[in-house]
Amino acid sequence: MKENKYDDPAFFEAYSHFPRSVQGLSAAGEWETFRKMLPELKGARVLDLGCGMGWHLRYAMGQGADLGVGCDLSERMLAAARERTADPRVTFLRAAIEDVNFPPGSFDLVISSLALHYVEDFAPVCEKVYGLLKSGGSFVLSVEHPVFTAQGKQDWCRGEDGAIRHWPVDDYFLEGKRETMFLGQPVIKYHKTLTTYAAGLLCAGFILTGLAEPQPSPELIKEFPGMAQESRRPMMLILSARKP
Amino acid sequence: MKENKYDDPAFFEAYSHFPRSVQGLSAAGEWETFRKMLPELKGARVLDLGCGMGWHLRYAMGQGADLGVGCDLSERMLAAARERTADPRVTFLRAAIEDVNFPPGSFDLVISSLALHYVEDFAPVCEKVYGLLKSGGSFVLSVEHPVFTAQGKQDWCRGEDGAIRHWPVDDYFLEGKRETMFLGQPVIKYHKTLTTYAAGLLCAGFILTGLAEPQPSPELIKEFPGMAQESRRPMMLILSARKP
Repeated sequence: MKENKYDDPAFFEAYSHFPRSVQGLSAAGEWETFRKMLPELKGARVLDLGCGMGWHLRYAMGQGADLGVGCDLSERMLAAARERTADPRVTFLRAAIEDVNFPPGSFDLVISSLALHYVEDFAPVCEKVYGLLKSGGSFVLSVEHPVFTAQGKQDWCRGEDGAIRHWPVDDYFLEGKRETMFLGQPVIKYHKTLTTYAAGLLCAGFILTGLAEPQPSPELIKEFPGMAQESRRPMMLILSARKP
Repeated sequence: MKENKYDDPAFFEAYSHFPRSVQGLSAAGEWETFRKMLPELKGARVLDLGCGMGWHLRYAMGQGADLGVGCDLSERMLAAARERTADPRVTFLRAAIEDVNFPPGSFDLVISSLALHYVEDFAPVCEKVYGLLKSGGSFVLSVEHPVFTAQGKQDWCRGEDGAIRHWPVDDYFLEGKRETMFLGQPVIKYHKTLTTYAAGLLCAGFILTGLAEPQPSPELIKEFPGMAQESRRPMMLILSARKP
Protein backbone atom coordinates (compact mmCIF):
# COMPACT_ATOMS: atom_id res chain seq x y z
CA MET A 1 0.00 0.00 0.00
CA LYS A 2 1.32 3.44 -0.92
CA GLU A 3 1.52 6.14 1.77
CA ASN A 4 -1.99 7.48 2.40
CA LYS A 5 -1.65 9.50 5.58
CA TYR A 6 -4.22 12.02 4.38
CA ASP A 7 -7.03 9.47 4.85
CA ASP A 8 -6.18 9.19 8.54
CA PRO A 9 -9.16 11.06 10.06
CA ALA A 10 -7.16 12.93 12.73
CA PHE A 11 -4.41 13.90 10.29
CA PHE A 12 -6.91 15.03 7.67
CA GLU A 13 -8.73 17.07 10.30
CA ALA A 14 -5.47 18.78 11.30
CA TYR A 15 -4.54 19.38 7.64
CA SER A 16 -7.99 20.87 7.01
CA HIS A 17 -7.16 23.70 9.39
CA PHE A 18 -3.75 24.40 7.83
CA PRO A 19 -3.74 27.92 6.30
CA ARG A 20 -3.31 26.61 2.77
CA SER A 21 -6.28 24.28 3.21
CA VAL A 22 -8.53 27.12 4.30
CA GLN A 23 -7.24 30.05 2.23
CA GLY A 24 -5.77 28.11 -0.66
CA LEU A 25 -2.76 29.11 -2.72
CA SER A 26 -2.53 32.65 -1.34
CA ALA A 27 -1.53 31.17 2.03
CA ALA A 28 1.13 28.91 0.51
CA GLY A 29 4.59 30.46 0.93
CA GLU A 30 5.91 28.91 -2.26
CA TRP A 31 2.94 29.68 -4.50
CA GLU A 32 4.16 32.91 -6.11
CA THR A 33 7.39 31.20 -7.14
CA PHE A 34 5.57 28.10 -8.38
CA ARG A 35 3.08 30.19 -10.34
CA LYS A 36 5.83 32.06 -12.19
CA MET A 37 7.38 28.78 -13.29
CA LEU A 38 4.18 27.56 -14.95
CA PRO A 39 3.96 27.77 -18.75
CA GLU A 40 1.04 29.34 -20.63
CA LEU A 41 -2.13 27.75 -19.26
CA LYS A 42 -4.60 28.88 -21.92
CA GLY A 43 -5.89 25.83 -23.76
CA ALA A 44 -3.68 23.47 -21.76
CA ARG A 45 -4.60 19.94 -20.69
CA VAL A 46 -3.31 19.71 -17.13
CA LEU A 47 -2.60 16.73 -14.89
CA ASP A 48 -1.96 17.28 -11.18
CA LEU A 49 -0.15 14.43 -9.40
CA GLY A 50 -1.10 14.48 -5.73
CA CYS A 51 -3.76 17.13 -6.32
CA GLY A 52 -4.96 17.35 -2.72
CA MET A 53 -7.90 19.71 -2.47
CA GLY A 54 -7.53 20.76 -6.10
CA TRP A 55 -6.37 24.35 -5.60
CA HIS A 56 -3.79 24.22 -8.40
CA LEU A 57 -6.21 22.74 -10.92
CA ARG A 58 -8.85 25.34 -10.15
CA TYR A 59 -6.20 28.02 -10.66
CA ALA A 60 -5.24 26.46 -14.02
CA MET A 61 -8.87 26.35 -15.17
CA GLY A 62 -9.27 29.96 -14.12
CA GLN A 63 -6.32 30.82 -16.38
CA GLY A 64 -8.01 29.24 -19.37
CA ALA A 65 -6.87 25.62 -19.22
CA ASP A 66 -9.00 23.28 -21.35
CA LEU A 67 -9.08 20.24 -19.12
CA GLY A 68 -7.87 19.25 -15.69
CA VAL A 69 -7.24 15.85 -14.15
CA GLY A 70 -6.30 15.52 -10.50
CA CYS A 71 -4.98 12.32 -8.97
CA ASP A 72 -4.62 11.63 -5.29
CA LEU A 73 -4.53 8.57 -3.12
CA SER A 74 -6.65 10.08 -0.37
CA GLU A 75 -10.44 9.74 -0.66
CA ARG A 76 -10.84 12.51 1.89
CA MET A 77 -8.69 14.90 -0.14
CA LEU A 78 -10.58 13.99 -3.32
CA ALA A 79 -13.93 14.55 -1.59
CA ALA A 80 -12.73 17.98 -0.47
CA ALA A 81 -11.49 18.69 -4.00
CA ARG A 82 -14.78 17.69 -5.64
CA GLU A 83 -16.75 19.72 -3.12
CA ARG A 84 -14.80 22.84 -4.07
CA THR A 85 -14.78 22.30 -7.84
CA ALA A 86 -17.88 22.96 -9.96
CA ASP A 87 -16.07 22.95 -13.33
CA PRO A 88 -17.20 19.89 -15.38
CA ARG A 89 -13.91 19.92 -17.30
CA VAL A 90 -12.09 18.83 -14.15
CA THR A 91 -11.94 15.19 -13.11
CA PHE A 92 -10.57 13.81 -9.86
CA LEU A 93 -9.33 10.24 -9.76
CA ARG A 94 -8.12 8.06 -6.97
CA ALA A 95 -4.65 6.79 -7.80
CA ALA A 96 -1.17 6.70 -6.33
CA ILE A 97 1.25 8.83 -8.35
CA GLU A 98 3.18 5.67 -9.21
CA ASP A 99 0.05 4.06 -10.71
CA VAL A 100 -1.32 6.92 -12.82
CA ASN A 101 -1.93 5.77 -16.38
CA PHE A 102 -3.05 7.69 -19.46
CA PRO A 103 -2.33 7.39 -23.18
CA PRO A 104 1.01 8.89 -24.27
CA GLY A 105 0.94 12.61 -25.01
CA SER A 106 -2.32 13.20 -23.11
CA PHE A 107 -1.18 16.39 -21.39
CA ASP A 108 0.46 19.77 -22.06
CA LEU A 109 1.37 20.26 -18.44
CA VAL A 110 1.91 17.95 -15.47
CA ILE A 111 2.20 19.57 -12.06
CA SER A 112 2.89 18.11 -8.66
CA SER A 113 2.84 20.21 -5.53
CA LEU A 114 4.57 18.92 -2.39
CA ALA A 115 3.64 15.31 -3.10
CA LEU A 116 6.73 13.65 -4.55
CA HIS A 117 8.61 13.50 -1.25
CA TYR A 118 6.03 10.85 -0.32
CA VAL A 119 7.14 8.74 -3.30
CA GLU A 120 10.20 6.56 -2.90
CA ASP A 121 11.53 6.50 -6.47
CA PHE A 122 11.67 9.68 -8.48
CA ALA A 123 13.18 8.41 -11.75
CA PRO A 124 10.19 6.21 -12.73
CA VAL A 125 7.85 9.15 -12.09
CA CYS A 126 9.91 11.29 -14.46
CA GLU A 127 9.81 8.60 -17.14
CA LYS A 128 6.05 8.26 -16.73
CA VAL A 129 5.44 12.01 -16.87
CA TYR A 130 7.69 12.29 -19.92
CA GLY A 131 5.47 9.77 -21.69
CA LEU A 132 2.22 11.46 -20.61
CA LEU A 133 3.34 14.84 -21.97
CA LYS A 134 3.14 15.84 -25.58
CA SER A 135 6.29 17.21 -27.17
CA GLY A 136 6.92 20.73 -25.85
CA GLY A 137 4.94 20.00 -22.69
CA SER A 138 6.07 20.95 -19.20
CA PHE A 139 6.53 19.31 -15.83
CA VAL A 140 6.53 21.68 -12.84
CA LEU A 141 6.95 20.20 -9.38
CA SER A 142 7.62 21.23 -5.83
CA VAL A 143 9.04 19.02 -3.11
CA GLU A 144 10.41 19.47 0.34
CA HIS A 145 14.02 20.55 -0.13
CA PRO A 146 16.74 17.92 0.37
CA VAL A 147 18.19 20.18 3.08
CA PHE A 148 14.82 19.93 4.83
CA THR A 149 14.38 16.18 4.47
CA ALA A 150 17.95 14.93 5.02
CA GLN A 151 18.21 14.51 8.75
CA GLY A 152 14.67 13.29 9.26
CA LYS A 153 13.50 15.06 12.38
CA GLN A 154 12.55 18.14 10.39
CA ASP A 155 13.10 20.43 13.32
CA TRP A 156 15.52 23.20 14.20
CA CYS A 157 18.52 22.67 16.42
CA ARG A 158 17.77 24.83 19.46
CA GLY A 159 19.83 26.13 22.34
CA GLU A 160 19.00 25.44 25.97
CA ASP A 161 16.84 28.58 25.98
CA GLY A 162 14.75 27.13 23.17
CA ALA A 163 16.00 29.66 20.61
CA ILE A 164 16.83 28.44 17.13
CA ARG A 165 20.56 27.94 16.58
CA HIS A 166 20.56 26.54 13.04
CA TRP A 167 19.04 23.85 10.84
CA PRO A 168 20.64 20.40 11.16
CA VAL A 169 21.66 18.46 8.04
CA ASP A 170 22.79 14.86 8.38
CA ASP A 171 22.78 11.59 6.38
CA TYR A 172 22.38 13.66 3.22
CA PHE A 173 23.59 10.92 0.88
CA LEU A 174 21.61 8.21 2.68
CA GLU A 175 18.45 8.39 0.60
CA GLY A 176 15.20 6.76 1.59
CA LYS A 177 12.63 6.60 4.33
CA ARG A 178 12.38 9.28 7.01
CA GLU A 179 9.91 9.09 9.87
CA THR A 180 8.96 12.71 10.38
CA MET A 181 6.39 14.57 12.47
CA PHE A 182 3.90 16.76 10.62
CA LEU A 183 0.87 18.37 12.19
CA GLY A 184 1.57 16.42 15.35
CA GLN A 185 1.51 13.05 13.62
CA PRO A 186 4.18 10.64 12.37
CA VAL A 187 4.44 10.76 8.57
CA ILE A 188 6.72 8.76 6.29
CA LYS A 189 8.63 10.77 3.69
CA TYR A 190 11.47 9.82 1.36
CA HIS A 191 14.64 11.88 1.35
CA LYS A 192 16.32 12.30 -2.02
CA THR A 193 19.38 14.33 -2.89
CA LEU A 194 19.28 17.26 -5.23
CA THR A 195 21.38 15.14 -7.58
CA THR A 196 18.60 12.54 -7.67
CA TYR A 197 15.94 15.13 -8.48
CA ALA A 198 18.01 16.67 -11.28
CA ALA A 199 19.18 13.34 -12.69
CA GLY A 200 15.62 11.96 -12.66
CA LEU A 201 14.47 14.74 -14.96
CA LEU A 202 17.57 14.86 -17.17
CA CYS A 203 17.81 11.08 -17.61
CA ALA A 204 14.13 10.88 -18.60
CA GLY A 205 14.94 13.26 -21.44
CA PHE A 206 13.66 16.54 -20.01
CA ILE A 207 15.34 19.92 -20.45
CA LEU A 208 15.65 21.56 -17.05
CA THR A 209 14.16 25.03 -17.47
CA GLY A 210 14.00 26.29 -13.90
CA LEU A 211 15.11 25.62 -10.35
CA ALA A 212 13.98 27.73 -7.42
CA GLU A 213 14.09 27.65 -3.66
CA PRO A 214 11.11 29.80 -2.72
CA GLN A 215 10.99 32.20 0.18
CA PRO A 216 7.73 33.61 1.47
CA SER A 217 7.11 37.25 0.56
CA PRO A 218 7.40 40.00 3.22
CA GLU A 219 3.59 40.35 3.10
CA LEU A 220 3.12 36.66 3.89
CA ILE A 221 5.64 36.82 6.74
CA LYS A 222 3.62 39.70 8.16
CA GLU A 223 0.48 37.57 8.05
CA PHE A 224 2.13 34.38 9.30
CA PRO A 225 5.09 35.49 11.51
CA GLY A 226 6.34 31.89 11.88
CA MET A 227 7.46 32.10 8.25
CA ALA A 228 10.24 34.61 9.11
CA GLN A 229 12.66 31.83 9.97
CA GLU A 230 12.26 30.48 6.41
CA SER A 231 15.18 32.65 5.31
CA ARG A 232 17.51 30.56 7.46
CA ARG A 233 17.22 27.37 5.44
CA PRO A 234 15.55 26.25 2.22
CA MET A 235 12.37 24.31 2.88
CA MET A 236 11.15 23.72 -0.63
CA LEU A 237 12.56 23.08 -4.05
CA ILE A 238 10.68 23.83 -7.26
CA LEU A 239 11.82 22.41 -10.58
CA SER A 240 10.47 23.02 -14.05
CA ALA A 241 11.32 20.96 -17.10
CA ARG A 242 10.28 20.77 -20.72
CA LYS A 243 9.90 17.75 -22.99
CA PRO A 244 11.80 18.66 -26.19
CA MET B 1 41.50 44.00 -5.30
CA LYS B 2 39.97 40.59 -5.93
CA GLU B 3 40.51 37.84 -3.36
CA ASN B 4 44.05 36.50 -3.72
CA LYS B 5 44.58 34.41 -0.62
CA TYR B 6 46.72 31.94 -2.54
CA ASP B 7 49.57 34.48 -2.79
CA ASP B 8 49.77 34.67 1.00
CA PRO B 9 53.05 32.78 1.61
CA ALA B 10 51.85 30.84 4.68
CA PHE B 11 48.53 29.93 3.06
CA PHE B 12 50.21 28.87 -0.16
CA GLU B 13 52.68 26.77 1.82
CA ALA B 14 49.81 25.02 3.64
CA TYR B 15 47.92 24.50 0.36
CA SER B 16 51.05 23.04 -1.23
CA HIS B 17 50.89 20.15 1.25
CA PHE B 18 47.18 19.48 0.66
CA PRO B 19 46.74 16.00 -0.88
CA ARG B 20 45.37 17.40 -4.14
CA SER B 21 48.37 19.72 -4.48
CA VAL B 22 50.82 16.86 -4.10
CA GLN B 23 49.00 13.97 -5.80
CA GLY B 24 46.81 15.98 -8.13
CA LEU B 25 43.34 15.01 -9.32
CA SER B 26 43.50 11.44 -8.00
CA ALA B 27 43.45 12.84 -4.45
CA ALA B 28 40.49 15.13 -5.13
CA GLY B 29 37.27 13.55 -3.83
CA GLU B 30 35.13 15.17 -6.50
CA TRP B 31 37.36 14.48 -9.49
CA GLU B 32 35.75 11.26 -10.76
CA THR B 33 32.36 12.99 -10.83
CA PHE B 34 33.78 16.12 -12.46
CA ARG B 35 35.63 14.08 -15.07
CA LYS B 36 32.47 12.23 -16.13
CA MET B 37 30.69 15.53 -16.69
CA LEU B 38 33.31 16.81 -19.15
CA PRO B 39 32.49 16.68 -22.86
CA GLU B 40 34.78 15.17 -25.51
CA LEU B 41 38.20 16.73 -25.02
CA LYS B 42 39.83 15.65 -28.28
CA GLY B 43 40.57 18.74 -30.34
CA ALA B 44 39.01 21.07 -27.76
CA ARG B 45 40.21 24.57 -26.91
CA VAL B 46 39.94 24.72 -23.12
CA LEU B 47 39.89 27.66 -20.73
CA ASP B 48 40.29 27.03 -16.99
CA LEU B 49 39.04 29.83 -14.72
CA GLY B 50 40.97 29.69 -11.45
CA CYS B 51 43.35 27.06 -12.80
CA GLY B 52 45.49 26.77 -9.65
CA MET B 53 48.39 24.40 -10.30
CA GLY B 54 47.01 23.44 -13.71
CA TRP B 55 46.02 19.82 -12.98
CA HIS B 56 42.78 20.03 -14.96
CA LEU B 57 44.44 21.57 -18.01
CA ARG B 58 47.17 18.96 -18.05
CA TYR B 59 44.48 16.28 -17.89
CA ALA B 60 42.64 17.91 -20.81
CA MET B 61 45.81 18.05 -22.92
CA GLY B 62 46.48 14.41 -22.09
CA GLN B 63 43.01 13.60 -23.46
CA GLY B 64 43.82 15.25 -26.78
CA ALA B 65 42.76 18.88 -26.24
CA ASP B 66 44.23 21.26 -28.82
CA LEU B 67 44.93 24.26 -26.64
CA GLY B 68 44.73 25.16 -22.98
CA VAL B 69 44.55 28.52 -21.26
CA GLY B 70 44.66 28.78 -17.49
CA CYS B 71 43.81 31.95 -15.58
CA ASP B 72 44.48 32.53 -11.93
CA LEU B 73 45.00 35.56 -9.74
CA SER B 74 47.79 33.99 -7.71
CA GLU B 75 51.34 34.34 -9.01
CA ARG B 76 52.40 31.51 -6.74
CA MET B 77 49.79 29.17 -8.17
CA LEU B 78 50.74 30.16 -11.71
CA ALA B 79 54.44 29.57 -10.97
CA ALA B 80 53.59 26.09 -9.64
CA ALA B 81 51.43 25.47 -12.71
CA ARG B 82 54.14 26.53 -15.18
CA GLU B 83 56.73 24.44 -13.34
CA ARG B 84 54.56 21.34 -13.78
CA THR B 85 53.50 21.96 -17.39
CA ALA B 86 55.90 21.34 -20.28
CA ASP B 87 53.23 21.42 -23.02
CA PRO B 88 53.76 24.52 -25.23
CA ARG B 89 50.08 24.55 -26.22
CA VAL B 90 49.20 25.56 -22.64
CA THR B 91 49.36 29.19 -21.53
CA PHE B 92 48.95 30.49 -18.00
CA LEU B 93 47.77 34.05 -17.47
CA ARG B 94 47.40 36.16 -14.40
CA ALA B 95 43.83 37.44 -14.22
CA ALA B 96 40.90 37.50 -11.86
CA ILE B 97 38.00 35.41 -13.19
CA GLU B 98 35.92 38.58 -13.42
CA ASP B 99 38.52 40.24 -15.69
CA VAL B 100 39.26 37.43 -18.16
CA ASN B 101 38.87 38.66 -21.72
CA PHE B 102 39.10 36.80 -25.03
CA PRO B 103 37.37 37.17 -28.39
CA PRO B 104 33.85 35.69 -28.56
CA GLY B 105 33.69 32.00 -29.38
CA SER B 106 37.35 31.36 -28.46
CA PHE B 107 36.74 28.12 -26.57
CA ASP B 108 34.95 24.76 -26.82
CA LEU B 109 35.07 24.20 -23.10
CA VAL B 110 35.37 26.43 -20.06
CA ILE B 111 36.03 24.73 -16.74
CA SER B 112 36.31 26.12 -13.25
CA SER B 113 37.22 23.94 -10.30
CA LEU B 114 36.41 25.17 -6.78
CA ALA B 115 37.11 28.80 -7.64
CA LEU B 116 33.75 30.49 -8.15
CA HIS B 117 32.85 30.55 -4.47
CA TYR B 118 35.60 33.19 -4.21
CA VAL B 119 33.71 35.36 -6.71
CA GLU B 120 30.88 37.53 -5.46
CA ASP B 121 28.62 37.65 -8.51
CA PHE B 122 27.93 34.51 -10.48
CA ALA B 123 25.59 35.85 -13.18
CA PRO B 124 28.20 38.09 -14.90
CA VAL B 125 30.63 35.15 -14.99
CA CYS B 126 27.99 33.04 -16.76
CA GLU B 127 27.36 35.79 -19.30
CA LYS B 128 31.08 36.14 -19.92
CA VAL B 129 31.62 32.40 -20.31
CA TYR B 130 28.62 32.16 -22.62
CA GLY B 131 30.28 34.73 -24.87
CA LEU B 132 33.69 33.02 -24.78
CA LEU B 133 32.23 29.68 -25.85
CA LYS B 134 31.42 28.76 -29.39
CA SER B 135 27.95 27.42 -30.08
CA GLY B 136 27.70 23.86 -28.72
CA GLY B 137 30.47 24.52 -26.22
CA SER B 138 30.34 23.49 -22.56
CA PHE B 139 30.84 25.06 -19.17
CA VAL B 140 31.65 22.64 -16.35
CA LEU B 141 32.20 24.02 -12.89
CA SER B 142 32.52 22.92 -9.30
CA VAL B 143 31.92 25.08 -6.25
CA GLU B 144 31.55 24.54 -2.56
CA HIS B 145 27.95 23.46 -2.05
CA PRO B 146 25.48 26.07 -0.76
CA VAL B 147 24.81 23.75 2.19
CA PHE B 148 28.52 23.96 2.96
CA THR B 149 28.87 27.73 2.57
CA ALA B 150 25.58 28.96 4.11
CA GLN B 151 26.37 29.29 7.78
CA GLY B 152 29.92 30.51 7.31
CA LYS B 153 31.88 28.66 9.97
CA GLN B 154 32.26 25.63 7.71
CA ASP B 155 32.52 23.30 10.64
CA TRP B 156 30.41 20.50 12.09
CA CYS B 157 28.14 20.96 15.05
CA ARG B 158 29.68 18.74 17.72
CA GLY B 159 28.50 17.36 21.03
CA GLU B 160 30.29 17.96 24.31
CA ASP B 161 32.35 14.83 23.65
CA GLY B 162 33.61 16.33 20.41
CA ALA B 163 31.69 13.87 18.23
CA ILE B 164 29.94 15.18 15.14
CA ARG B 165 26.21 15.69 15.65
CA HIS B 166 25.24 17.17 12.29
CA TRP B 167 26.11 19.91 9.80
CA PRO B 168 24.67 23.34 10.63
CA VAL B 169 22.83 25.35 7.94
CA ASP B 170 21.84 28.94 8.67
CA ASP B 171 21.33 32.25 6.81
CA TYR B 172 20.83 30.26 3.62
CA PHE B 173 19.04 33.05 1.77
CA LEU B 174 21.45 35.71 3.01
CA GLU B 175 23.91 35.59 0.14
CA GLY B 176 27.32 37.22 0.24
CA LYS B 177 30.54 37.32 2.17
CA ARG B 178 31.51 34.57 4.62
CA GLU B 179 34.66 34.69 6.70
CA THR B 180 35.71 31.06 6.85
CA MET B 181 38.73 29.18 8.09
CA PHE B 182 40.60 27.03 5.58
CA LEU B 183 43.97 25.39 6.23
CA GLY B 184 44.17 27.27 9.52
CA GLN B 185 43.78 30.68 7.90
CA PRO B 186 40.87 33.10 7.48
CA VAL B 187 39.57 33.07 3.91
CA ILE B 188 36.74 35.13 2.39
CA LYS B 189 34.19 33.17 0.37
CA TYR B 190 30.83 34.17 -1.07
CA HIS B 191 27.77 32.10 -0.27
CA LYS B 192 25.22 31.75 -3.04
CA THR B 193 22.05 29.72 -3.09
CA LEU B 194 21.49 26.83 -5.45
CA THR B 195 18.83 29.01 -7.08
CA THR B 196 21.49 31.62 -7.88
CA TYR B 197 23.82 29.05 -9.44
CA ALA B 198 21.05 27.56 -11.58
CA ALA B 199 19.55 30.92 -12.54
CA GLY B 200 22.99 32.31 -13.47
CA LEU B 201 23.45 29.58 -16.05
CA LEU B 202 19.86 29.50 -17.33
CA CYS B 203 19.52 33.29 -17.61
CA ALA B 204 22.79 33.52 -19.55
CA GLY B 205 21.22 31.19 -22.12
CA PHE B 206 22.84 27.90 -21.16
CA ILE B 207 21.10 24.54 -21.20
CA LEU B 208 21.72 22.80 -17.88
CA THR B 209 23.02 19.35 -18.77
CA GLY B 210 24.15 18.01 -15.42
CA LEU B 211 24.08 18.59 -11.69
CA ALA B 212 25.96 16.44 -9.22
CA GLU B 213 26.90 16.43 -5.58
CA PRO B 214 30.00 14.28 -5.54
CA GLN B 215 30.90 11.81 -2.84
CA PRO B 216 34.38 10.37 -2.52
CA SER B 217 34.70 6.75 -3.63
CA PRO B 218 35.14 3.95 -1.05
CA GLU B 219 38.76 3.61 -2.23
CA LEU B 220 39.46 7.27 -1.52
CA ILE B 221 37.82 7.05 1.91
CA LYS B 222 40.14 4.13 2.67
CA GLU B 223 43.15 6.27 1.73
CA PHE B 224 41.89 9.44 3.47
CA PRO B 225 39.67 8.27 6.38
CA GLY B 226 38.59 11.85 7.15
CA MET B 227 36.52 11.71 3.99
CA ALA B 228 34.06 9.20 5.51
CA GLN B 229 31.98 11.95 7.05
CA GLU B 230 31.41 13.37 3.55
CA SER B 231 28.28 11.23 3.25
CA ARG B 232 26.63 13.27 6.00
CA ARG B 233 26.37 16.52 4.04
CA PRO B 234 27.11 17.70 0.52
CA MET B 235 30.35 19.64 0.31
CA MET B 236 30.55 20.32 -3.38
CA LEU B 237 28.26 21.03 -6.27
CA ILE B 238 29.18 20.35 -9.89
CA LEU B 239 27.18 21.83 -12.74
CA SER B 240 27.53 21.30 -16.46
CA ALA B 241 25.87 23.42 -19.10
CA ARG B 242 25.87 23.71 -22.87
CA LYS B 243 25.62 26.77 -25.07
CA PRO B 244 22.91 25.92 -27.64
